[in-house]
Amino acid sequence: MHLPTVRIALLQDRDRGGMQAAAENTEKLIRQAAAGGAKIICTQELFLTEYFCWKQDSSFFDLAIPIPSEWTARFQNLARELSVVLILSLFERRAPGLSHNTAVVIDADGSLMGKYRKMHIPQDPGFEEKFYFAPGDLPYRSFHTRYADIGVLICWDQWYPEAARLTALAGAQIIFVPTAIGGIASEPESLGDRQRDAWLNVQRGHAVANGCYWAAVNRVGIEHGTSFWGSSFAADFYGNHLVIGDRAQEQILYADCDLAAMEEHRRMWPFFRDRRIDSYSDLMRRFND
Amino acid sequence: MHLPTVRIALLQDRDRGGMQAAAENTEKLIRQAAAGGAKIICTQELFLTEYFCWKQDSSFFDLAIPIPSEWTARFQNLARELSVVLILSLFERRAPGLSHNTAVVIDADGSLMGKYRKMHIPQDPGFEEKFYFAPGDLPYRSFHTRYADIGVLICWDQWYPEAARLTALAGAQIIFVPTAIGGIASEPESLGDRQRDAWLNVQRGHAVANGCYWAAVNRVGIEHGTSFWGSSFAADFYGNHLVIGDRAQEQILYADCDLAAMEEHRRMWPFFRDRRIDSYSDLMRRFND
Repeated sequence: MHLPTVRIALLQDRDRGGMQAAAENTEKLIRQAAAGGAKIICTQELFLTEYFCWKQDSSFFDLAIPIPSEWTARFQNLARELSVVLILSLFERRAPGLSHNTAVVIDADGSLMGKYRKMHIPQDPGFEEKFYFAPGDLPYRSFHTRYADIGVLICWDQWYPEAARLTALAGAQIIFVPTAIGGIASEPESLGDRQRDAWLNVQRGHAVANGCYWAAVNRVGIEHGTSFWGSSFAADFYGNHLVIGDRAQEQILYADCDLAAMEEHRRMWPFFRDRRIDSYSDLMRRFND
Repeated sequence: MHLPTVRIALLQDRDRGGMQAAAENTEKLIRQAAAGGAKIICTQELFLTEYFCWKQDSSFFDLAIPIPSEWTARFQNLARELSVVLILSLFERRAPGLSHNTAVVIDADGSLMGKYRKMHIPQDPGFEEKFYFAPGDLPYRSFHTRYADIGVLICWDQWYPEAARLTALAGAQIIFVPTAIGGIASEPESLGDRQRDAWLNVQRGHAVANGCYWAAVNRVGIEHGTSFWGSSFAADFYGNHLVIGDRAQEQILYADCDLAAMEEHRRMWPFFRDRRIDSYSDLMRRFND
């Protein structure tokens, strides 16, 4: 069995002040990442726009786009031209009054393989997402792309071991997580540092528990008092960082995912073999009362 | 609502060459930990014996003890005398040909609150546990002790986010994990280091995902070529270490668990609120085919 090593790229960027400018800049970054050898390239969450969820304002629904649309067609053409897999995080307009936080996966031949709609939706000061995003209604899944079987989760999903597990059980070898997370101005910086620790720690844990590679892509910059902490990273199945980004600078981050090493590791620690599937039914309860 | 800070102690020890000697030494350590202010004290896995699972030998079933028995009575008396909660990891004889890897929780009044039987059982060279231990058949649970609501998982369980989640959903504020893990002589030390990283990373992740404190207690010493790596630790709900032990030396490790801070943290990041319990049913499947 031959298993390749796959280079991935994480596009850690800042808001570009408009959708057209963001698309142009992201195209430039994708060309650069492809030239750098990346075969699978992932954007940060909602890369076409500012992180508009800082307040509840219905005019922001103008930023939502249908999927597919000319926006996705543009990147399908680019994927085909460069023979790269793209993961794009978008604000999806599904119907009047019905929007989602949605990622699309485009295969290296330019085909739109499918969507994943963010399942877990946060709601707290600075992150007013339940106002904008209907909860996802598509499966956790793996996309059998040209270069690897990949899964996608989105931001708040990243705190949920259930989401990571279900994506891994669907067959994902690498799980990508477009993200927009940072500290808000009303909280002390020390708290933000601990929250960033938690954000790193929980995802490194998912990589270990599921014997897979993990790649989180966060934005940088300060928007309306929220300081997005970057720190985009890829981790291996030991939960160790392969690469981690700056906290403030936009960057393209690369990591090489050795799928043969993953196969060997899973043979040594076959966590899936020993799951007690007879004992997990209470996971479908909210709490134990 | 008044919530206390609870000092816990982790007894990182080595094999003492016999059950009587191990019981005596552990009693000494418990007295020392209680004098150090600990209210909840946890042993390493199978603390009364060597880690006999290094080979499959039916004579080792002689090491199993009924629960309750004079062994548990001894520690019930000690708990009552010192007003401490004890978590003991034992080799349970349930019937001829039926044994379990079982933890008991003794409340500070000396009462035996109940048992947890290891659910996930490993089987690999040096860790021949499926030969000795029938899979657990008791619930994941929280024990409402005098000082805190605590859960117990045992060693291989620690890799399973399902087990951590179910224990947290049962109400546990602190999850204790008696463990016996190390590197085997036939593998390179660098692999052992990465495996130790994974062991730390996955459990720190569970602490974050479940907004709880986490305490893993591992043994030290070399037994039959297996080098147990110690590194017992407590982590907070950010996944950061409160304390971490030596890789080779026996130690008592202390950590203070601030339950008011945990309450405040969970209000800020209410992961349980947003669980998509409608979407988790495939967790009860082995894999996605």
